[in-house]
Amino acid sequence: MTQLSAARRGRITPQMRQVARVEGVDPEFIRDGIAKGLVVLPANTNHKVKRLSAIGKGLRTKVNANIGTSPDHADLQEELSKLRVAVEAGADTIMDLSIGEDLDQIRRAILKRADLPLGTVPIYQAVLQAARTKKSIVNMTRDDILSAIERQAEDGVDFMTVHCGLTRRALESLREQGRITDVVSRGGAFLVTWMIANNKENPLYEEYDRILEIANKYDVTLSLGDGLRPGCLADATDRPQVQELICLGELRDRAYKAGVQVMIEGPGHIPLDEIEANVLLAKKLCKEAPFYVLGPLVTDVAPGYDHITGAIGGAIAAMAGADFLCYVTPSEHLRLPTVQDVKEGVVATRIAAHAADIVKGVAGALRWDERMARARKALKWKEMINLALDPQKAREYHSSFEGVCTMCGKYCAIKLVKEYFKRQ
Amino acid sequence: MTQLSAARRGRITPQMRQVARVEGVDPEFIRDGIAKGLVVLPANTNHKVKRLSAIGKGLRTKVNANIGTSPDHADLQEELSKLRVAVEAGADTIMDLSIGEDLDQIRRAILKRADLPLGTVPIYQAVLQAARTKKSIVNMTRDDILSAIERQAEDGVDFMTVHCGLTRRALESLREQGRITDVVSRGGAFLVTWMIANNKENPLYEEYDRILEIANKYDVTLSLGDGLRPGCLADATDRPQVQELICLGELRDRAYKAGVQVMIEGPGHIPLDEIEANVLLAKKLCKEAPFYVLGPLVTDVAPGYDHITGAIGGAIAAMAGADFLCYVTPSEHLRLPTVQDVKEGVVATRIAAHAADIVKGVAGALRWDERMARARKALKWKEMINLALDPQKAREYHSSFEGVCTMCGKYCAIKLVKEYFKRQ
Repeated sequence: MTQLSAARRGRITPQMRQVARVEGVDPEFIRDGIAKGLVVLPANTNHKVKRLSAIGKGLRTKVNANIGTSPDHADLQEELSKLRVAVEAGADTIMDLSIGEDLDQIRRAILKRADLPLGTVPIYQAVLQAARTKKSIVNMTRDDILSAIERQAEDGVDFMTVHCGLTRRALESLREQGRITDVVSRGGAFLVTWMIANNKENPLYEEYDRILEIANKYDVTLSLGDGLRPGCLADATDRPQVQELICLGELRDRAYKAGVQVMIEGPGHIPLDEIEANVLLAKKLCKEAPFYVLGPLVTDVAPGYDHITGAIGGAIAAMAGADFLCYVTPSEHLRLPTVQDVKEGVVATRIAAHAADIVKGVAGALRWDERMARARKALKWKEMINLALDPQKAREYHSSFEGVCTMCGKYCAIKLVKEYFKRQ
Repeated sequence: MTQLSAARRGRITPQMRQVARVEGVDPEFIRDGIAKGLVVLPANTNHKVKRLSAIGKGLRTKVNANIGTSPDHADLQEELSKLRVAVEAGADTIMDLSIGEDLDQIRRAILKRADLPLGTVPIYQAVLQAARTKKSIVNMTRDDILSAIERQAEDGVDFMTVHCGLTRRALESLREQGRITDVVSRGGAFLVTWMIANNKENPLYEEYDRILEIANKYDVTLSLGDGLRPGCLADATDRPQVQELICLGELRDRAYKAGVQVMIEGPGHIPLDEIEANVLLAKKLCKEAPFYVLGPLVTDVAPGYDHITGAIGGAIAAMAGADFLCYVTPSEHLRLPTVQDVKEGVVATRIAAHAADIVKGVAGALRWDERMARARKALKWKEMINLALDPQKAREYHSSFEGVCTMCGKYCAIKLVKEYFKRQ
């Protein structure tokens, strides 16, 4: 039975209790959210995880870190280091996006060590196998895709991105309208290539019922991918993007009816003033399903700093109601991220998520800031460092001098005012 | 004659022409903005600057970088390195906030090398002199303050922060209401200390007419400081802050009448959902004078990453109408910034400013992103790197492989789709 089926029958599962405890909410709140499709609890029945996360309305905004090999850089040990660093930096979930070397081996190694929910994009494996054994990705069959999904589900993958909404209709919309960047989603690009070469409908769309069956069997949470997400600001909130999103809304209903947990993926590159509308649109078209955004990036011109452009967009998206932020690293648009990039990406995204949680009224969020403020006022440096989102960096940067810092030294505003200003 | 007096008389100065050319707007647009008090053009008559900036409505959002010594760390050469790095990274203005060693020497050295507008906080010099020669900062006299202002104006300082609005009334509001962090502005703390010890009104408030005279004489732009800005989220948008802001509005009118260019400083630490209201309030209370924000920081818990928390807040503030962003570095709350911190602070703040300029409709802003998007679509790496906000970092991170990057290698979405997808 999936968490959704259980929730609908009024059953509070051990997993629901566990996440409720961590969130500081009533287990019934979690059950009710899942039952209504407002919350997902990715927990494959074949994957035991200590640090489960529920994602959705009323809960802490979660942060995902993507790791994984590429054809040009495939080193399992390095990916396992990224996993460790991402977890230490506070990621809530991990996605293995490997497309280099033995994907089964890599995924299983990560699953074994990942003590939190793991996501994948199974089409990658189907594509790679077709490229290796059938000469070209366009020779991939529907069964190749479904068997990749089934194999990964059986392995214990907790959530999967499936670009089921990238239909011929959406592609037609792209063709008619035109765009600067066309398709920038890797999964989207594989599917578009296949659909054009074979002159056929998206197999993930046509086989959606079979995908739902597999997802139901292992309680895999489906993350409906946005294969036509805009790849630059100029392409944002355009017809192909919204056309696909409408389809994701329809597919969300079918998943919900089938007892399959489902969330929606969103862009991408969006100008600052379109982010709120994008969140609202996704929430409305998809009946308030949890919304998972990649970034969004608020400018195209800052490669090397896209963790920052993503944190800006992510904070606004989360404030507007996005539930789940996929990190972006400083390497985005330039190279496969390094271990250090992974850390910077997670921290920047956690900042965005937390800043939004404060104004979302998430339990305990503002209290953290208040504790930091009181420690600052009292010039308690150890406490400030322990309360820091990244204590390691704060400790490294802090250079104590007579109880103050080298910014102002003896002219510390807080120290000065303390001597003279007493409240009545 | 100040730029404001000239503008009011319908005169377009060479400085107005110069900034109009850089902004890509009509010189009359600049003159009109200055005449209405919506734009300032900091340009001390004793300081010749090649890279002038106008700040205000309809113009590119500007970025300021603070440099300067502290009592515990005072190295002129290091500050000059920070100046160089800040300028290279694209800062529009510099503020010298030195409070360590010989302030005249440092300021003059920076003025000599700074080919862009320089700002200071003259109260620092008056305070330090009193501490050195009169045993305590509380023995500072009004004349000490005015002579520091006059000396720095004569030296060529283009804009000065003066915390004239921190009156006894505002302080009373702080006392009555209470706050976690009381006063966190350095200048504010000096004044509060002095006011309480001497049981007198803020000398910068009482001597405002004399300050206006000096400012008028050298065309120093006044930046009305917010000495009671909140030092943590919990204190944001409270009565003392708004009480001081009302006074800044009144002082803005007096400056404008006196022909003195004036802008308003704003917080500080503000939750995400209060930023827009803060900008609106400042703009309304101060008759649309240019608004200069420090950050704002959207969480208190991320020391070591406050360039990111500041970029999130700055982007939203600028979108809401803030004209001028003061950078925050990763060292904020921990130590005096290093040269590397200065670079990171400027870049993060430029990202915020540019993201906002796109949606403000600033001339040429979105075009930059479109050029980047087209270069990406064409996989033109050299062009992408040259177009990057920080080409140096982009070049360093990019690891080219057969015309794509190591993120996806031969499975590059753009490359794949290009082969198959043709628009009609």
